[in-house]
Amino acid sequence: MSAPRIAIVGAGLVGRGWAIVFAQAGLEVAVFDASADIRATVPCEVSASLRDMADADLLREAPEAIAARITIHSALAAALAECDYVQESVFERLDVKAAIATEIAALLPPQAIVGSSSSGIPASHFTERLAARDRFLIVHPVNPPHLVPVVELVPAPWTAPDTLARARTLMQQVGQSVVTVNREIEGFVLNRLQGALLNEAWALFEAGYASAEDIDRTVRDGLGLRWAFMGPFETIDLNAPGGVADYARRLGPLYHRIARQRTAPQPWSDDLIARVEAERRRRLPREKLAARGAWRDRRLMGLLAHRRRAAATDQQQDE
Amino acid sequence: MSAPRIAIVGAGLVGRGWAIVFAQAGLEVAVFDASADIRATVPCEVSASLRDMADADLLREAPEAIAARITIHSALAAALAECDYVQESVFERLDVKAAIATEIAALLPPQAIVGSSSSGIPASHFTERLAARDRFLIVHPVNPPHLVPVVELVPAPWTAPDTLARARTLMQQVGQSVVTVNREIEGFVLNRLQGALLNEAWALFEAGYASAEDIDRTVRDGLGLRWAFMGPFETIDLNAPGGVADYARRLGPLYHRIARQRTAPQPWSDDLIARVEAERRRRLPREKLAARGAWRDRRLMGLLAHRRRAAATDQQQDE
Repeated sequence: MSAPRIAIVGAGLVGRGWAIVFAQAGLEVAVFDASADIRATVPCEVSASLRDMADADLLREAPEAIAARITIHSALAAALAECDYVQESVFERLDVKAAIATEIAALLPPQAIVGSSSSGIPASHFTERLAARDRFLIVHPVNPPHLVPVVELVPAPWTAPDTLARARTLMQQVGQSVVTVNREIEGFVLNRLQGALLNEAWALFEAGYASAEDIDRTVRDGLGLRWAFMGPFETIDLNAPGGVADYARRLGPLYHRIARQRTAPQPWSDDLIARVEAERRRRLPREKLAARGAWRDRRLMGLLAHRRRAAATDQQQDE
Repeated sequence: MSAPRIAIVGAGLVGRGWAIVFAQAGLEVAVFDASADIRATVPCEVSASLRDMADADLLREAPEAIAARITIHSALAAALAECDYVQESVFERLDVKAAIATEIAALLPPQAIVGSSSSGIPASHFTERLAARDRFLIVHPVNPPHLVPVVELVPAPWTAPDTLARARTLMQQVGQSVVTVNREIEGFVLNRLQGALLNEAWALFEAGYASAEDIDRTVRDGLGLRWAFMGPFETIDLNAPGGVADYARRLGPLYHRIARQRTAPQPWSDDLIARVEAERRRRLPREKLAARGAWRDRRLMGLLAHRRRAAATDQQQDE
């Protein structure tokens, strides 16, 4: 089988990250965006990201060799011609997703499947009436996809099993960490887990139990350290002498009582949002947000490089 | 002011970790445990942990120099004599905590304060009748304290402000990352945040949305990467162009809808626990749990060393 040819539809932050994911894995990537302004930024932004990744020792090739696999197209038909896989990353609004899905379906080669980067809108909401609806699914990355490896695959009720299987194989081939969400649910898995923790964090802040900074510390210097290389189930499996069942019997009742204290969830009020915003802006003024975002990406790259070295050491010790 | 003298009461896994925390910061540590068997294991276990830390480049001194500051005592009175701070880490059961608090209070030097490692029982439940109750509070570490820096300080209603302030100063002095929980709440902050995420994880698994392994991946290769060096508030503050308020207005409604789907929490049933246990044991047989625990500690040490290097680089760039 020859290497799959990739089309990227929508070249904002997410689409550009996807272009890097596929190109660094050796695949040819055709990028389309309807906006000439956005198309013009792609080469420069991609090159800058690749240089940062090279500096962090995350690439196995020269940045130029990777960038050379990415071509930019001003016509959707040209980007989709002869492609095997489409990653759609347009603006997250139902009418926009529906319109681009219809356009893609009209131009889709018969062998190709389509993954949407949608973080919240399930594929069933915008693919139901398409003849090719069995070849669409959600392929939801975390931002930016080239620095955070997880990707959620979420089939619509009519997504063909073969479509899901092909998307999974491709994502593994390009080095993403694949999570299969067996059927649609609001927020998928990642944002539901994040939301559960966030809802508790905001409620604790609102009632004055701790500052936002101290809640951040609790995760950053506590929970997050283990969660950065084990998930929540493995963490608790190793946190009681008899494993996860032992842990669940000891601590399940506590967690159930805590859940029962949160059965009347309130929206985050404007006043509450203003108080969190005020604390954050005291720590990080608005004009420094962008620089801190660049810091976050450098730290993410450093952490990824660390994890690769640690995994390589693990493997040597297993051999 | 001379260096504070530390007493450790209870020398299991948690108490030994605390002994390392204080001794590596240059303080003299007197360790008491009622069990001769446990006392006998302390020097060997502490030395092994210190050697591992030295291998991971986490110590500024030779392990032997640190271990030399730790003395073992068979009498509580001897360990507490002339101490300034007591870290109590006995078995977590109310009657055990109450009994040892009464014993400690009877022997406590007038200048000393007492932190309990309790992860769930608040200090008000076992200090109310003590004359020295204003000098007791919760100082809750994550296991093991010498590898996970966060510590939650939770005052009882009658804990003196000066007790809280002194505990905070001491914990910062020995390099812990201090979270102040302003008043008692079940599970404090850390286990409430962990519980919120775990409850959602178990519910998703129970309803068949994803395997335990895929839920672990979602955290390990997604959410946990950012949470290992930023907390949840900083993560979302950097995840929308306008900062946390912008993020909250965009995504708050989604998270509120998700919370409203979880207003009838069920305990983790025996059947559910058995299913999670079965999946975990397929991935990690019971006889490999202990070896995997040692792996987790090595990975934690490697991650801490990585974070120290990254923080040092940040600081150089700021200068």
